[in-house]
Amino acid sequence: MLIRSLVSSKLQSLSLRCFSSAATPQVLKPGDVLRKARAFTEEDVLHYSKVTHDLNPLHTDSAAAQNVGFEGPLVHGMLVASLFPHIISSHFPGAVYVSQSLNFKFPVYIGDQVIGEVQATNLRANKNRYLVKFKTRCIKSDELVAIEGEAVAMLPTLTVEQLLHKEQ
Amino acid sequence: MLIRSLVSSKLQSLSLRCFSSAATPQVLKPGDVLRKARAFTEEDVLHYSKVTHDLNPLHTDSAAAQNVGFEGPLVHGMLVASLFPHIISSHFPGAVYVSQSLNFKFPVYIGDQVIGEVQATNLRANKNRYLVKFKTRCIKSDELVAIEGEAVAMLPTLTVEQLLHKEQ
Repeated sequence: MLIRSLVSSKLQSLSLRCFSSAATPQVLKPGDVLRKARAFTEEDVLHYSKVTHDLNPLHTDSAAAQNVGFEGPLVHGMLVASLFPHIISSHFPGAVYVSQSLNFKFPVYIGDQVIGEVQATNLRANKNRYLVKFKTRCIKSDELVAIEGEAVAMLPTLTVEQLLHKEQ
Repeated sequence: MLIRSLVSSKLQSLSLRCFSSAATPQVLKPGDVLRKARAFTEEDVLHYSKVTHDLNPLHTDSAAAQNVGFEGPLVHGMLVASLFPHIISSHFPGAVYVSQSLNFKFPVYIGDQVIGEVQATNLRANKNRYLVKFKTRCIKSDELVAIEGEAVAMLPTLTVEQLLHKEQ
């Protein structure tokens, strides 16, 4: 499989490359990788707790988290995993999520710099859309894979959209 | 497998039973089902979009959603799926999520009444904690299964916690 990366392959390079309007359109191919870096804040965790009603004390109470052997409050795993549909839909607006598997292997703490990564592994035309399978990983700055799994999404096109909003 | 339901098995019964302090402690067994009803609002979707940075127009733009064949804006699948860790952690505070698989089979629209359901299928003691596998489903009021999959969580106890906060 031809491994191409639409962004830097270096973990140290934490910002996505934003395609300018003058750039040649990029067409997704097997092996292509799209990434997004983020560090979740305490405020993110509180907002996520509020919208999901998930009040597990592991996310807000240092003592509760340490009691289970963690270093401190954890970011909700499903909040970290939201990086995957975010990456896919920001490059392919109108993408429809079909499936996602998630294995939570290492904790992500508030403030941890992580990189969400999706790699196209299989592409299949389906009428006027494209069914694409992605390998999905979330990598901590110490190169530990915190989350791994697979996603399948139905994309309206294989042309990689310019990022219209500023990446954070 | 002995099928017991800690809550009403009727879809029409949309509120979880809250255990009073006088109730006999409930201990989770294989087959037990825990449920939570919810209808996600436009405000929920906007808050979730903000915290996850997921600005897929399918969630906010009726025309974009209808263009793909949907009736209207969709709730993010991962927001609907957040019902599963919410249900588990509200009954077992301190639960640690190990894995989750998600198959998104039918769309959930803003305002749809849905029921998240987790059913314990396998329980295994692990040191002083419990590794529990759950069948996870999200059911629409027309009994369509919108999301199905499996979750594995490490629970600090098998005793079902009283719900200390008001369910919505």
